[in-house]
Amino acid sequence: MKVGILGGTGPQGRGLARRLAAAGHDVLIGSRDVERADRIAAEYDDAGYSGWVAGGSNSEAAGAELVIITVPYHGHAELLASLTTELAGKIVVDCVNPLGFDEKGPFQLLVAAGSAAQEAQQLLPESTVIAAFHHVSAVLLDDPTVDDFPDDVLVLGDDRDAVAVVCELATAIPGARGIYAGRLRNAGQVEALTANLIAINRRYKTHAGIAVTGEL
Amino acid sequence: MKVGILGGTGPQGRGLARRLAAAGHDVLIGSRDVERADRIAAEYDDAGYSGWVAGGSNSEAAGAELVIITVPYHGHAELLASLTTELAGKIVVDCVNPLGFDEKGPFQLLVAAGSAAQEAQQLLPESTVIAAFHHVSAVLLDDPTVDDFPDDVLVLGDDRDAVAVVCELATAIPGARGIYAGRLRNAGQVEALTANLIAINRRYKTHAGIAVTGEL
Repeated sequence: MKVGILGGTGPQGRGLARRLAAAGHDVLIGSRDVERADRIAAEYDDAGYSGWVAGGSNSEAAGAELVIITVPYHGHAELLASLTTELAGKIVVDCVNPLGFDEKGPFQLLVAAGSAAQEAQQLLPESTVIAAFHHVSAVLLDDPTVDDFPDDVLVLGDDRDAVAVVCELATAIPGARGIYAGRLRNAGQVEALTANLIAINRRYKTHAGIAVTGEL
Repeated sequence: MKVGILGGTGPQGRGLARRLAAAGHDVLIGSRDVERADRIAAEYDDAGYSGWVAGGSNSEAAGAELVIITVPYHGHAELLASLTTELAGKIVVDCVNPLGFDEKGPFQLLVAAGSAAQEAQQLLPESTVIAAFHHVSAVLLDDPTVDDFPDDVLVLGDDRDAVAVVCELATAIPGARGIYAGRLRNAGQVEALTANLIAINRRYKTHAGIAVTGEL
């Protein structure tokens, strides 16, 4: 599948590009800075994966079959509002965590729509928005020596078929499982849980993620 | 340690009473219905654990050294406001998940204070409120045949010593780990994540909990 990653030159975007190319997908890394996207894409394209990786503008990346959003939250609404046409009819996977930081560490930013994913769905009424990939450590994703992820990927959405597509995409990360974890209206707490994982990382000097226990 | 459980006759309270008594703690199950609390406590008191279990009123349970709150959210504020004197100077562990349910399943209830735990801290300014035990399955807690929990317990709070006490309490559940997961202001998403676990339980017919990945 041809996958576009908006804001794909950041740590999360690069990690996903690596894993998706390794799983045989073709990846378009989109960025405001096309030259930077090209340069980063070349690294992954030369890594010998079965999928190719190319760079381009966010608008070009939005032309892919499935599009992942990894921009910082402060640029989220403006970018999506500018790409409604390109994203119409597609699965849009929102990984954005609306977090603020102060001297006491990270905290949840309030989003009028309830969550970044619900905001995306409001801005993109003709797309099918799925929330996923919030907790997988960008550091581990982008580390080619890590080939057995202990993390699960919580996948949220209101369209069962789109959820299944994204669960499959997540399960392509070696060791990880894509797990349905509720409707889009329950995405806010999943996004904000990243603040707790950052607190765990700081206290225990680790790269924390989450796994779902119980038989699945 | 002598532990009181407010609203302790519900599934979560009963499960915690069993595990804490098994770990050698003395447990006071509090309830509005003292006769019911007595009857339920007798079951655990007769189970041969090294700690004793007794029933009583919520006010009596609030007299213990450490107090756990497992009431439904709709009774949370009223109960705590009535026990400020009994709870002053103590560690109060809030396990309450403010959730609503409709035909589409569970969802997060908005709490003006940010979370049930922050609401508790506002109502109990002389207590040290810690948020914990939101995700451990009540069914598994109360099943004496389960002796190796795969779940972790996220423990949130602003007082490092109190966090350590509650982490130790959680780690007394065989197999579980109590893990510091941030300040109290990050409790809302941990409480609300219970909605996602309920969605997972419904889709996969399981008793889902969470485990933290990464070296701790």
